[in-house]
Amino acid sequence: MLPFSASSDDDRFHEECGVFGVYGHKDAAALTALGLHALQHRGQEACGIVSVEGENFHAHRALGLVDATFSSAAVMDMLKGNKAIGHNRYATSGDTILRNVQPVYGDLSFGGFAIAHNGNLTNAYKIREGLVKKGSIFQSTSDTEVIVHLVATAAEGTPILDRLKQALTIVQGAYSLVAATADEMIGLRDPYGVRPLLLGKLGDAYILTSESCGLDIIGAELVRDVRPGEAVVVNDNGVEFVQLLPQQSKRFCIFEYVYFARPDSVLENKSVYHTRRQIGVELAKEAPCIGADIVVPVPDSGVPSAIGYAAQSGLPFELGIIRNHYVGRTFIEPTDQIRHLGVKLKHNANKAYIKGKSIVLVDDSIVRGTTSRKIVEMVREAGAREVHMRISSPPTKHSCYYGIDTPDSAELMANRFSIDDIRKQINVDSLAYISLDGLYRAVGEAKRDPENPGFCDACFSGKYPIALTDHEDGRPDKKVSSLNEYKAART
Amino acid sequence: MLPFSASSDDDRFHEECGVFGVYGHKDAAALTALGLHALQHRGQEACGIVSVEGENFHAHRALGLVDATFSSAAVMDMLKGNKAIGHNRYATSGDTILRNVQPVYGDLSFGGFAIAHNGNLTNAYKIREGLVKKGSIFQSTSDTEVIVHLVATAAEGTPILDRLKQALTIVQGAYSLVAATADEMIGLRDPYGVRPLLLGKLGDAYILTSESCGLDIIGAELVRDVRPGEAVVVNDNGVEFVQLLPQQSKRFCIFEYVYFARPDSVLENKSVYHTRRQIGVELAKEAPCIGADIVVPVPDSGVPSAIGYAAQSGLPFELGIIRNHYVGRTFIEPTDQIRHLGVKLKHNANKAYIKGKSIVLVDDSIVRGTTSRKIVEMVREAGAREVHMRISSPPTKHSCYYGIDTPDSAELMANRFSIDDIRKQINVDSLAYISLDGLYRAVGEAKRDPENPGFCDACFSGKYPIALTDHEDGRPDKKVSSLNEYKAART
Amino acid sequence: MLPFSASSDDDRFHEECGVFGVYGHKDAAALTALGLHALQHRGQEACGIVSVEGENFHAHRALGLVDATFSSAAVMDMLKGNKAIGHNRYATSGDTILRNVQPVYGDLSFGGFAIAHNGNLTNAYKIREGLVKKGSIFQSTSDTEVIVHLVATAAEGTPILDRLKQALTIVQGAYSLVAATADEMIGLRDPYGVRPLLLGKLGDAYILTSESCGLDIIGAELVRDVRPGEAVVVNDNGVEFVQLLPQQSKRFCIFEYVYFARPDSVLENKSVYHTRRQIGVELAKEAPCIGADIVVPVPDSGVPSAIGYAAQSGLPFELGIIRNHYVGRTFIEPTDQIRHLGVKLKHNANKAYIKGKSIVLVDDSIVRGTTSRKIVEMVREAGAREVHMRISSPPTKHSCYYGIDTPDSAELMANRFSIDDIRKQINVDSLAYISLDGLYRAVGEAKRDPENPGFCDACFSGKYPIALTDHEDGRPDKKVSSLNEYKAART
Amino acid sequence: MLPFSASSDDDRFHEECGVFGVYGHKDAAALTALGLHALQHRGQEACGIVSVEGENFHAHRALGLVDATFSSAAVMDMLKGNKAIGHNRYATSGDTILRNVQPVYGDLSFGGFAIAHNGNLTNAYKIREGLVKKGSIFQSTSDTEVIVHLVATAAEGTPILDRLKQALTIVQGAYSLVAATADEMIGLRDPYGVRPLLLGKLGDAYILTSESCGLDIIGAELVRDVRPGEAVVVNDNGVEFVQLLPQQSKRFCIFEYVYFARPDSVLENKSVYHTRRQIGVELAKEAPCIGADIVVPVPDSGVPSAIGYAAQSGLPFELGIIRNHYVGRTFIEPTDQIRHLGVKLKHNANKAYIKGKSIVLVDDSIVRGTTSRKIVEMVREAGAREVHMRISSPPTKHSCYYGIDTPDSAELMANRFSIDDIRKQINVDSLAYISLDGLYRAVGEAKRDPENPGFCDACFSGKYPIALTDHEDGRPDKKVSSLNEYKAART
Repeated sequence: MLPFSASSDDDRFHEECGVFGVYGHKDAAALTALGLHALQHRGQEACGIVSVEGENFHAHRALGLVDATFSSAAVMDMLKGNKAIGHNRYATSGDTILRNVQPVYGDLSFGGFAIAHNGNLTNAYKIREGLVKKGSIFQSTSDTEVIVHLVATAAEGTPILDRLKQALTIVQGAYSLVAATADEMIGLRDPYGVRPLLLGKLGDAYILTSESCGLDIIGAELVRDVRPGEAVVVNDNGVEFVQLLPQQSKRFCIFEYVYFARPDSVLENKSVYHTRRQIGVELAKEAPCIGADIVVPVPDSGVPSAIGYAAQSGLPFELGIIRNHYVGRTFIEPTDQIRHLGVKLKHNANKAYIKGKSIVLVDDSIVRGTTSRKIVEMVREAGAREVHMRISSPPTKHSCYYGIDTPDSAELMANRFSIDDIRKQINVDSLAYISLDGLYRAVGEAKRDPENPGFCDACFSGKYPIALTDHEDGRPDKKVSSLNEYKAART
Repeated sequence: MLPFSASSDDDRFHEECGVFGVYGHKDAAALTALGLHALQHRGQEACGIVSVEGENFHAHRALGLVDATFSSAAVMDMLKGNKAIGHNRYATSGDTILRNVQPVYGDLSFGGFAIAHNGNLTNAYKIREGLVKKGSIFQSTSDTEVIVHLVATAAEGTPILDRLKQALTIVQGAYSLVAATADEMIGLRDPYGVRPLLLGKLGDAYILTSESCGLDIIGAELVRDVRPGEAVVVNDNGVEFVQLLPQQSKRFCIFEYVYFARPDSVLENKSVYHTRRQIGVELAKEAPCIGADIVVPVPDSGVPSAIGYAAQSGLPFELGIIRNHYVGRTFIEPTDQIRHLGVKLKHNANKAYIKGKSIVLVDDSIVRGTTSRKIVEMVREAGAREVHMRISSPPTKHSCYYGIDTPDSAELMANRFSIDDIRKQINVDSLAYISLDGLYRAVGEAKRDPENPGFCDACFSGKYPIALTDHEDGRPDKKVSSLNEYKAART
Repeated sequence: MLPFSASSDDDRFHEECGVFGVYGHKDAAALTALGLHALQHRGQEACGIVSVEGENFHAHRALGLVDATFSSAAVMDMLKGNKAIGHNRYATSGDTILRNVQPVYGDLSFGGFAIAHNGNLTNAYKIREGLVKKGSIFQSTSDTEVIVHLVATAAEGTPILDRLKQALTIVQGAYSLVAATADEMIGLRDPYGVRPLLLGKLGDAYILTSESCGLDIIGAELVRDVRPGEAVVVNDNGVEFVQLLPQQSKRFCIFEYVYFARPDSVLENKSVYHTRRQIGVELAKEAPCIGADIVVPVPDSGVPSAIGYAAQSGLPFELGIIRNHYVGRTFIEPTDQIRHLGVKLKHNANKAYIKGKSIVLVDDSIVRGTTSRKIVEMVREAGAREVHMRISSPPTKHSCYYGIDTPDSAELMANRFSIDDIRKQINVDSLAYISLDGLYRAVGEAKRDPENPGFCDACFSGKYPIALTDHEDGRPDKKVSSLNEYKAART
Repeated sequence: MLPFSASSDDDRFHEECGVFGVYGHKDAAALTALGLHALQHRGQEACGIVSVEGENFHAHRALGLVDATFSSAAVMDMLKGNKAIGHNRYATSGDTILRNVQPVYGDLSFGGFAIAHNGNLTNAYKIREGLVKKGSIFQSTSDTEVIVHLVATAAEGTPILDRLKQALTIVQGAYSLVAATADEMIGLRDPYGVRPLLLGKLGDAYILTSESCGLDIIGAELVRDVRPGEAVVVNDNGVEFVQLLPQQSKRFCIFEYVYFARPDSVLENKSVYHTRRQIGVELAKEAPCIGADIVVPVPDSGVPSAIGYAAQSGLPFELGIIRNHYVGRTFIEPTDQIRHLGVKLKHNANKAYIKGKSIVLVDDSIVRGTTSRKIVEMVREAGAREVHMRISSPPTKHSCYYGIDTPDSAELMANRFSIDDIRKQINVDSLAYISLDGLYRAVGEAKRDPENPGFCDACFSGKYPIALTDHEDGRPDKKVSSLNEYKAART
């Protein structure tokens, strides 16, 4: 019997990162830890904070959750200074190594430079190869380090903002950056604004955060979202907005609304909870379920859409599946005999309540289909008479190269099978996904404009707004976590 | 800055224990670990398993959660044997010590004896004093050890069931026991049946568990609840039911339905979810809230009653408060300056959704009032127009001596203040509790029979069904976790 | 590759314990930790301290060395009080368990009682069986716990000294005890005085220690050795000596001089270093080595005798074998290929110096012979022309039942083979042991009196001064570290 | 009470590093771990191994001793490949950080490159400043990283040996390097040969090691010392010797013989034990001690010279001071009251033996004088009638910049005081150091040739053979362990 991951049956997507920064508060590192805690859902594998005290930079990074990592007085006392930036990371591979934990720090000719990054560069390995030839030494496989080396190798005397501009003109991909020098904090979004980044204010201090829930936890107020291609520069003179890179038509990741962001966040002026609930409303209009008894969410991500679906359809909303709050990351490996019992570590059917009923199950997406199959089986064993599945996103057919950990397209169920085949495989009486237009209606558009959709919806539509250079050249196209993995991918 | 407990603002009740046992399965310890995982909400501080392999007993106990404690292959390999019993523990004090972690084991004259216990004995310290005078040496402050010593000091040759009968005739209090000898597993409830205990079956194996969700996780089926005063004896000849102690009128803890048990459990043939939802229905009848906009649960325990309240009242059920899933047990100590920010580690208001609305907040209880105050304040700061609080239990006025960790009566808000005073203090526009009769209607009775209420409701009514000997004699009346604490209490 | 013990090739004897106590010093626990550190060679597996503060007893016990165990401020702050007793333990088995770590504590009818013990009882299991039948519950397999249960079960009201007298009248074996109640510290040696125990003084405080080096480390002065059967009682009135048990003819363990005790200790008024050096002198007289070039000690225990041998013989004393100071307890498991290299983790020959020379190797004993064989092989490979082995003890033919971890007699090389056979097996040109009379001369006697030898020399002579009841009855005759091991031994 | 370092009273010198490498053995990493274990005395703070498996490099580095770091099967299984290099490190500062632990690894344009280094560069910071200006990013404060960056920034296509030559032509200082690429292992000594490096052979495998004891532990044979400025290149074609840098007159560190190297090592064809013993002989000739009773070494480094002194003088060699083998790194902080007791954690006087005697204490050096003072005080308190101190090195007046951690010259007692003042301060009846010429006689020279002494003896003579560029420019001149320390030093 060996430990196995309770999440081994979890074929959800994973956001790769959350970023946070504070400028001008005596408890900068403590506020950053709180902000990262609020952003924990964006990356649970590792986290780090770099604080800036005069010309000195203090760093602490670790594998693990934010509260465990920053609960030590010794650690917090060490992170002195009134500026700090932080990062949550989701690892794309089991052998997460500490070298890849951000923020990345470099001791450059103009002084210390720290940077944290949410997103994924699509030509990072191409750039890296050129830099290595000229003598740059990489310590990690993080694409963030590419940016640091580009910044480092600019001509001596170049100001930091020009260094960043030069670097990011070369770089392709989706990114929201938070950086710190001895004097400044800089926030920056890629020209398409794929990943979120917001500016907030707490008294005289400025805050950068991936989501507005990072402001709420410390009682800060929202100033506004950073714009595509825009740099926000905070220093002792206040805040300055610079359109560093030419703004392209906005392509904010629509999946942030569907699944990633916390429901209490407001991104690009839209409430995530409201949007998610509206998807349920649209879904009930597009795919009603006459004759069903109750609407049951797959906890917890399916809850807001299930509430919307129930409200629109007039069916009762009920907790037909109960989640175990204590699911840890690993558990005892069951023997084959135990495995056949179908151990319910994460969820249990509310048997007494769903027995004999026709239920509408609402979930946010189907990835490989393994989770859906298990949940339907559990619900049927508990005695549900009929099971109707409603999905609050369009079929996920394409992999993401902009910072979300998605399986290869070839592993995505919707890429391989028709909706009716999926229905049969997961064994439901009916199956419906929200349409792409329905999704756009839920976020407040009349319909999707194919020429300029306003969001990145490549995972549904296959329309990638930003070039996939490494992918097309056969280089590694996702983050790899170890040098050997990189090497294996390179050869 | 020092670590502090994120739960320091948590003035909830705490169940003290969960028990589980398996007889006759080659993976007995692994199944027990899974059962304890399903019962984790009944005790998060510590856990332990004793397995029985022939005449040998193997034990592993640790502070911490079940999944972490039993995720090691070395530990699971060591817990050999086809019988096992296990225990989850909630500690009543910060300095939990490993000696107090159950199951308790004794090497008695007839062989090994292991026992785990949910509940609290009300004359444990009186009995202990007598035993110590005769030379018994106690290793812990657990009242379970009192039972072991009573069993040990019976006349040589007395069979185990008679030893238990002799011991439990002396003992007062609430208890559900699971015990193991080399040959047998025994389950036993006190004569009033205060704490739950159920028998299940998985193929040829028998299972004992505090709640039915412990059966579901391993796919076992429910046989029936153990009866008050009844012993269930499982050995290689099968199962035998013995009415070991005279059955008293049943007094099952009604608070298990209100708060403690998992909603997917069925206890004494009643669905916890359904009962909890019915409380919401009754509450909406007793205390409607005309003109409110939405019903908002305090997550997660308030959700089922809020669903019932919304359904009965016709108001929409909405997630107006979002819970952070990553709340750990400790976090950085905020400085005073940060503390004033009202850091929202556990919950955040869904500001965009509740702004300007009149909301009905549904929670399960008010203990000291600190949590309610903070939640109301958070909701008001988020812009709620009106806040109406509805509580799905009657006012909690009396402390529990039967196995639930409640503050002393003097600290209970409802013991000190009128409902209107409480309303003012927590700053809500209206406040209502379910009535005691309403609660009995929700569990399926027409009304409460004051002579024979059928449940223990002492925390609401002050009617204690079992004598409080240690309490009345001025001895320690709750579990203490260290010998010095005991000593301090004794002198 | 698996970890293996660097000491797996170490077939030395092991002393099982060191004891220490302080009465009447505000830093009692800190002084006890220092004393245990000085006595670390008597037991390296585990250690513990119980301090006494008024009526409260504070305990900390752990597996590991003293300096690591008591280097934490939190631990030392917890061990309050002006009395403390402590214990070092050598484990007889790999699965040392924390329950067996001393001092043992019991909460008895007259208050707290802590005790630590150096030695081994020879009828512990017989007594234990009787106690268990009457209802005593044992937590460990330590024979010390037998004494605690005997003390606990005395008639109520019996004073502690009478309780001890009653208990020790029943008990057989070798023991030096240090015990503490709320008011007193008691030191006690068995009637034969097999194991050492000394009383010291530091200002107004009294100290009990297994060796005088425990006094030196804290600058305390020696008062005198405790006498066989004598109890030393220290309380606020000062110190009192009570001949608690009838004194038998003294049988102090002669092997303490040969190997166990630290060379800087003085036991029973004899310097260990001087005695050990004198053995070398006697050995050089009995077994000179004409024509050899240098005398080489097997480090470190052979050094003093080698100095004596060199001085008496006129041969130069040289470090022909160098010890690696960093030998830890475990190391990487060599593959077979590496194993054949004869990895020299602990010792290395001083090749440049012994090449071509005829050397006299001085060691303290030969147990199973494996170590001697390896050392001789190493020395020969380094180019020694001739190797003559001299052993500073008589042939070890019999196992010890009085507190020293010796292999069973059947495994002792000298029990199985003649001296000449041993010589051939370990491959030396000549081999000589000191004679029993020579050993007695070295400790200052004219010769050994067979009727009343004055020392316990059972390991050499086979004359056991104290009955071996458990051994003769077929019960476990050595300490066992787990209940299952005990059980296995019992059946 | 806080933990303090048991070595806080230790004002010895510290070697900074040991290096080891294996080429062509299937257990390369395991052999490297054994080699590092034998070299543990050269650096106890941290250690690391990089193994090479085809094109992949595997690394494990940790703070702590070799046996603890490499006792895990998981770690050893990961370190696959038939080449490996390793490093032991002594940290110059308390806040050792993992980034500074060697071997250093870089992913360069030609593939992986790992390097480990014993010594200190005297213009590392000057070179570093130039590299940072051009965009190199440093991860550590190790001067080894300077070499890696110089190697990385050579023109594309330059072979590795040319890259090293270019780099080392720029670099000044003392260094013995072991490096590995995918195809080769390279060993290299600076042009003066200040630090040792030897080549050995084990079957078909080649070994590089700082001392010959690293060969003995695995049964390898010595080929020869690497020559000053020479590169040893090992690849699948065998071994090749290349005079990479112009050889200067040899300046091997004479202090390796006096103190650092293990006595069983042979360096530059001289036995360390023999040399150290000869120093004692010369010292007895230069500074006899007529009328003394015994010669007592300060353990353990003083032992060989004391043996030589005793042999030459005819006085008996005796262990008058006993070392505690269990001295750990930290221990409880004594209160003031305890501190005044003069706690003897590391050494104890053999009181019974030295009382009333006139003793000659032999030690290897006096640094700040604190240790000597304490030892003399201890010996006097134990009753020594007279104490004569003999030091087996000339007065240490100058700090080392070539890889040994020495206090600043201003803190060296011999730099501040005359020999007679030192004698008074450490309170001895007489004090003598070996003369510089005497030391040269002991290593086999007739006398020291001031023009070309053949050894580096700068710590005694002040004649530094290699330029101290950083020191003279006011840059950091010793290793610093954190970026902030570096920064602080830079500004």
